[in-house]
Amino acid sequence: MAKPLILVVNDDGITSQGIRTLIEVMQELGEVFVVAPDSPQSGMGHAITIGDTLRLDATDIYPGVQAFQCSGTPADCVKIAKHYVLKGRQPDLVVSGINHGSNSSISVLYSGTMSAAIEAAIEGIPAIGFSFCDYSPVAEMGHLREYVKQIASNVLEKGMPEGIALNVNFPVPNGIPIKGIKICRQALSKWSEFFEERKDPHGRRYFWMSGQFENEDKGEDTDEYALAHNYISIVPCYYDMTAHHFMSKFNNNFFGS
Amino acid sequence: MAKPLILVVNDDGITSQGIRTLIEVMQELGEVFVVAPDSPQSGMGHAITIGDTLRLDATDIYPGVQAFQCSGTPADCVKIAKHYVLKGRQPDLVVSGINHGSNSSISVLYSGTMSAAIEAAIEGIPAIGFSFCDYSPVAEMGHLREYVKQIASNVLEKGMPEGIALNVNFPVPNGIPIKGIKICRQALSKWSEFFEERKDPHGRRYFWMSGQFENEDKGEDTDEYALAHNYISIVPCYYDMTAHHFMSKFNNNFFGS
Repeated sequence: MAKPLILVVNDDGITSQGIRTLIEVMQELGEVFVVAPDSPQSGMGHAITIGDTLRLDATDIYPGVQAFQCSGTPADCVKIAKHYVLKGRQPDLVVSGINHGSNSSISVLYSGTMSAAIEAAIEGIPAIGFSFCDYSPVAEMGHLREYVKQIASNVLEKGMPEGIALNVNFPVPNGIPIKGIKICRQALSKWSEFFEERKDPHGRRYFWMSGQFENEDKGEDTDEYALAHNYISIVPCYYDMTAHHFMSKFNNNFFGS
Repeated sequence: MAKPLILVVNDDGITSQGIRTLIEVMQELGEVFVVAPDSPQSGMGHAITIGDTLRLDATDIYPGVQAFQCSGTPADCVKIAKHYVLKGRQPDLVVSGINHGSNSSISVLYSGTMSAAIEAAIEGIPAIGFSFCDYSPVAEMGHLREYVKQIASNVLEKGMPEGIALNVNFPVPNGIPIKGIKICRQALSKWSEFFEERKDPHGRRYFWMSGQFENEDKGEDTDEYALAHNYISIVPCYYDMTAHHFMSKFNNNFFGS
């Protein structure tokens, strides 16, 4: 039987430790293609490049792996992989990450890692975004390999409902073994920003944005709850933004005269 | 009674015709602040600026209006407006647009216009993104003013459920008067891309991405259906990406051994 075709992408850039770990694990499961940004693209959300050109260059940094670096966003990488690099072959799985930092809760919207996975899901490809709640660029990821392999194997074997992308987050390491996996909903939280004002050498002001995560959603079925209790959180995500639970209210003559 | 505080943002940039139209209509309804990108930001999705600095400068291009141009993304503009420019005042309404081009269906994910509105909704502010299915930068928008005013007035008067942002699209002009407003769900469609390869003057290849919209969702309750039948489509959007309709499947031991 032919090996499954697995596309690997990320948002931290093609040289990051997280994608290297992910590539190594995926090589145990199938034929691996890599199309990843040539520079860090964190926080790019679902941005795509429509007013500018794109570069795409082969690279041999991963021996035995067909790898390409792209000047675009994570979502661009999935699009150019699907419609150009793979020349019509449909991947059996797209994996994104492993992101250096959390993409749980509201961060799914800002995340390039997850937008790449969601882009693949829109294309009808089973997709998983992996993120590690340790922001260090040299974070120790060895203990994550067995879980990454298990989750990806399950998806390859069982498939996924059309259009779904999994948002997988691994808890902050605390010296205690991970307790297991929990299927969760996205906690309804937000980031609260502050803007630090500085002066450049020419006396003109500029700002650095920083944020503080605020979670007022105390549900025990959320990704935040699972992560805080040392579980891996998995949120199945879907690209339909419609507020279905509020439609009846709006149909009730909300815009009537 | 104090006038409502209305924040105006967009993604085409602060000098575009669409934001000018929106500012003029909002001046009839309240006290207007403008914080908008200093250059076009189409396709930026929910990108935020976390690895770079931001500029923010006051501008007097709109007489009688407090306006600021920002080097960041549409989502950045909402964040810096809320947490810096407005100094703690909570807007009663955030309006984004009027976008020069459609943001119906799947385009809501790629849209800077809608990401600004969704960012406001996350902050608990009623928000509306307006888009016109005419891509011309000099599109005639005069006939949209009455609808923009009606929709914004309704939201100011009646409020909105917490966390909801409205995705309002106006149909392509066809010489026939608009038939009315329809509350819709997002059509489940996608863009299919192609990549045109060119050579730069140094002989190195680069690409332009182009896309073709593909809608296989024939539901008569979708935004695409409404727009095709000369109605204004309004999709109430929510920032929870959880695939709630598939949770039971995943809870059923999907990741069991």
